[in-house]
Amino acid sequence: MADKDPAALLDAARTWWSTEIIDMKPGVIRFRGYPIEQLIGAVSFPQMIWLMLRGSLPSLNESALLEAALVAAVDHGPQAPSIAISRMAVTCGLPLNGAMASAINVLDDVHGGAGEQCMELYADIARHLDAGLPLEQAVEAGVDAFMAAHGKIVSGFGHRFHPVDPRAPRLLGLVEAARERGVVSGRFAEIGRTVEALLQRRKGRPIPMNIDGATAVIYAELGFSPPLGRGLFILSRSVGILAHAWEQTRQGGRIKGPMPPSVPYSYTGPAPRDFPG
Amino acid sequence: MADKDPAALLDAARTWWSTEIIDMKPGVIRFRGYPIEQLIGAVSFPQMIWLMLRGSLPSLNESALLEAALVAAVDHGPQAPSIAISRMAVTCGLPLNGAMASAINVLDDVHGGAGEQCMELYADIARHLDAGLPLEQAVEAGVDAFMAAHGKIVSGFGHRFHPVDPRAPRLLGLVEAARERGVVSGRFAEIGRTVEALLQRRKGRPIPMNIDGATAVIYAELGFSPPLGRGLFILSRSVGILAHAWEQTRQGGRIKGPMPPSVPYSYTGPAPRDFPG
Amino acid sequence: MADKDPAALLDAARTWWSTEIIDMKPGVIRFRGYPIEQLIGAVSFPQMIWLMLRGSLPSLNESALLEAALVAAVDHGPQAPSIAISRMAVTCGLPLNGAMASAINVLDDVHGGAGEQCMELYADIARHLDAGLPLEQAVEAGVDAFMAAHGKIVSGFGHRFHPVDPRAPRLLGLVEAARERGVVSGRFAEIGRTVEALLQRRKGRPIPMNIDGATAVIYAELGFSPPLGRGLFILSRSVGILAHAWEQTRQGGRIKGPMPPSVPYSYTGPAPRDFPG
Amino acid sequence: MADKDPAALLDAARTWWSTEIIDMKPGVIRFRGYPIEQLIGAVSFPQMIWLMLRGSLPSLNESALLEAALVAAVDHGPQAPSIAISRMAVTCGLPLNGAMASAINVLDDVHGGAGEQCMELYADIARHLDAGLPLEQAVEAGVDAFMAAHGKIVSGFGHRFHPVDPRAPRLLGLVEAARERGVVSGRFAEIGRTVEALLQRRKGRPIPMNIDGATAVIYAELGFSPPLGRGLFILSRSVGILAHAWEQTRQGGRIKGPMPPSVPYSYTGPAPRDFPG
Repeated sequence: MADKDPAALLDAARTWWSTEIIDMKPGVIRFRGYPIEQLIGAVSFPQMIWLMLRGSLPSLNESALLEAALVAAVDHGPQAPSIAISRMAVTCGLPLNGAMASAINVLDDVHGGAGEQCMELYADIARHLDAGLPLEQAVEAGVDAFMAAHGKIVSGFGHRFHPVDPRAPRLLGLVEAARERGVVSGRFAEIGRTVEALLQRRKGRPIPMNIDGATAVIYAELGFSPPLGRGLFILSRSVGILAHAWEQTRQGGRIKGPMPPSVPYSYTGPAPRDFPG
Repeated sequence: MADKDPAALLDAARTWWSTEIIDMKPGVIRFRGYPIEQLIGAVSFPQMIWLMLRGSLPSLNESALLEAALVAAVDHGPQAPSIAISRMAVTCGLPLNGAMASAINVLDDVHGGAGEQCMELYADIARHLDAGLPLEQAVEAGVDAFMAAHGKIVSGFGHRFHPVDPRAPRLLGLVEAARERGVVSGRFAEIGRTVEALLQRRKGRPIPMNIDGATAVIYAELGFSPPLGRGLFILSRSVGILAHAWEQTRQGGRIKGPMPPSVPYSYTGPAPRDFPG
Repeated sequence: MADKDPAALLDAARTWWSTEIIDMKPGVIRFRGYPIEQLIGAVSFPQMIWLMLRGSLPSLNESALLEAALVAAVDHGPQAPSIAISRMAVTCGLPLNGAMASAINVLDDVHGGAGEQCMELYADIARHLDAGLPLEQAVEAGVDAFMAAHGKIVSGFGHRFHPVDPRAPRLLGLVEAARERGVVSGRFAEIGRTVEALLQRRKGRPIPMNIDGATAVIYAELGFSPPLGRGLFILSRSVGILAHAWEQTRQGGRIKGPMPPSVPYSYTGPAPRDFPG
Repeated sequence: MADKDPAALLDAARTWWSTEIIDMKPGVIRFRGYPIEQLIGAVSFPQMIWLMLRGSLPSLNESALLEAALVAAVDHGPQAPSIAISRMAVTCGLPLNGAMASAINVLDDVHGGAGEQCMELYADIARHLDAGLPLEQAVEAGVDAFMAAHGKIVSGFGHRFHPVDPRAPRLLGLVEAARERGVVSGRFAEIGRTVEALLQRRKGRPIPMNIDGATAVIYAELGFSPPLGRGLFILSRSVGILAHAWEQTRQGGRIKGPMPPSVPYSYTGPAPRDFPG
């Protein structure tokens, strides 16, 4: 390192962080080339999200489909760890940013990754279709591979609380309407329905598509990469996390644990003993 | 605790978490009373944000103003600690949720609180107006109190990079248009302009309203509480945090520090010494 | 900026991060001047903590007192939000680092700041003593100012679960033994005892010093700044946060909310209604 | 759920959180059965860490080895993302807990997982030995499997900055001394040395064991599970994260980005364009 000349070192510093997203000069802010003052008041928040993530602007019809998915997933109640953590964090003294951070952090593979995993499943099935397999066989191959990797629960299908997740049929109806208008191809909706049918045949009872399976259809139809399924879910669920943090702020409470102090936890360790024992 | 009866203990558990936001039964999800399947496809994402935070739905005109503010603040480049942290986190192996959490966490008082502080300033001035002070005096009183508490920099005014922040005039233009159509009262826009004029008189040069001052006008005009100024900013900036995390994911990189390894940090501590010295 | 010459820009980059803590060259790592290979196996973990935070090495007697405080505060059970969050996070799919981050984050003013606040109270009383006030009056002045700023609960005294916190007398005994051997002055132990006596007189019942009050005595006797009271508490409680995350990892569980699904939360919002309502 | 009786529901709540680590009654706190007041002042901080994670107390010799590893890994300078994030977070207004959380969060697979991965490699080789393979072959089999899963860089060996990591030989010397005294078996030290020799043969140059490889030897010799390699590293590195957060707090600074503002990032996106373009 010591022998590099200053110009080379400075150039290394200047190119260390590189982005296609935003360009700034004093008095100028451009996103993907567009000046911010032309975007404000002209594009919707979902269009802006798309522009930031994809580099180009969606049509209004595409944006409407994205918007429906963002609306659908904002919250699933304080029994969800993310929401509970947001509320608990506030009672520990955290401002909204801190509460949201602790909560968003837990939207990991298990609690926040189902949509992404389902998009990967759909993409895998689509690759089988592209390779010439008929739909039923492509779905069988995809689901078998998924189960081999992840176990018997297929992300995006079935729900431990809702017999039918009320969000899924509504979202799928919007996809179908969009397909009829030529906004999307409908390929991933068909894949999703075929997975659902396969699971019902195998288990002998309906395993209906849930919110994660339905938003995965939408995000895949719109051309998002699977990891962005998680990213978009986080943007959506952040709204609920914020709303609950704010409600808890107004409710007050100090160091509020998971259950009331009157309901103690269960200790299952060694009996009392003296040290050094 | 031990002497409470089971029914009382159970009731304590059941009421430990209480919310007005979301109600669920198997197959039913209602937000603020509305079934989710009626909201999906019918309300915009900003309307849903409003419903979650406020309990009622905004008009389309109110929602449009909120949306403009959300669009305006999505990103300010990788020199901002929040964006840099998001990108660095990805190179440490974190998925998008973890990168976003570490980044959102730092949107604290200094990096994410300017809008909230500015809303508190505006609210303080509004209280002086309500108490009968003329506008100029109310603004003087508010700014003096703010400076006494926070120092000479007034949150929401001036920018260390932009001589004029291009987002602010555009947002204020939208507020003015909304005022003309009777969507908002224009009270907080007037307060903001008067603060700006006072600062210019005091400093002898323009200290123009920046993004935080302009979004504070919008959020205050729409009736949001000051802490939600921070909350809404976080929802907006999360989009940039996600976009940069995703861009860094595709760029690759492992354990990417703040500066290239060729540009070392500066050590200013004790000279080399032997232990125990 | 544009007109700065490369050497100046490079120098700005080189001095952007500056530290007295650690110096490195290829093959060489020095902490506060000492080569790491001389410290490993020669200093205890608490001595290393001290060296990192203070810049010099403590005596063995000082280190022993610090060590007792670090041992005392490792855990207070899964009803504490920090511990519960750590366990919940694991069931959402987070690895140990993520679970610890979400949990440590909530050790904020309310849940993690009591020791720091108590150290500030002690320091305030010490300033009154230095200014010539007799002990009783100095304590009255300090406690009155504390209550005016923070409310009636004095951080470090009283406990909502333990009539007497078993950790406090043991820690205070170690301080007294250290004072007798000349390790510490005993000034802050005396301040603490006098605060305790004042609170008992005022409330008409014992408000005994708790873990935070006792560790605050130790950290103050050892010369740590108040914010490091929070920092040292975090290092200690991190052990419990890790232990519970690890235990939960081995127990398994997926998306484990704060209470069992069979015990629902309480919904107190609007009755069911149709959109647009 | 609705048809469960109150006693069953209450019991479900009571057993929802279950732990072997800590038992509490008013006035009583026991860790793994031991009353806390007997542990304070009697066990060292590393012994307490061991008790919390393992359920029993280590010998003093075992504890000394653990302590050396904890001392060794506290910090590797502000070019490490975790340390830089900690410092940046402070300049955004975060208190020490928040800075530590954002930083610890990034100690994920890439930045904090090398020790754990190396322990898994050692454990895999040990399983081959248990199955009867000679040492050389067991090591070949383990390293081949590791490279197939993770790529050509073997976690725990080689360093991009240090030709020889000065921490590793010192730690290995302590392991050897402990082996001679019968504290540990030396099995994992031998495995580590054999991996090192294999890598040198394959690459044609030394790829010496680094801090992660050496602490992995110690943790494996002491019987810790691989994921706790990451957990113990976090406890150690938290010290550096705290020390740098504290140093930055005293240095001051507001919204300090990764590089000085005079050294801009590189924009590589679309040229300026008008919307709707």
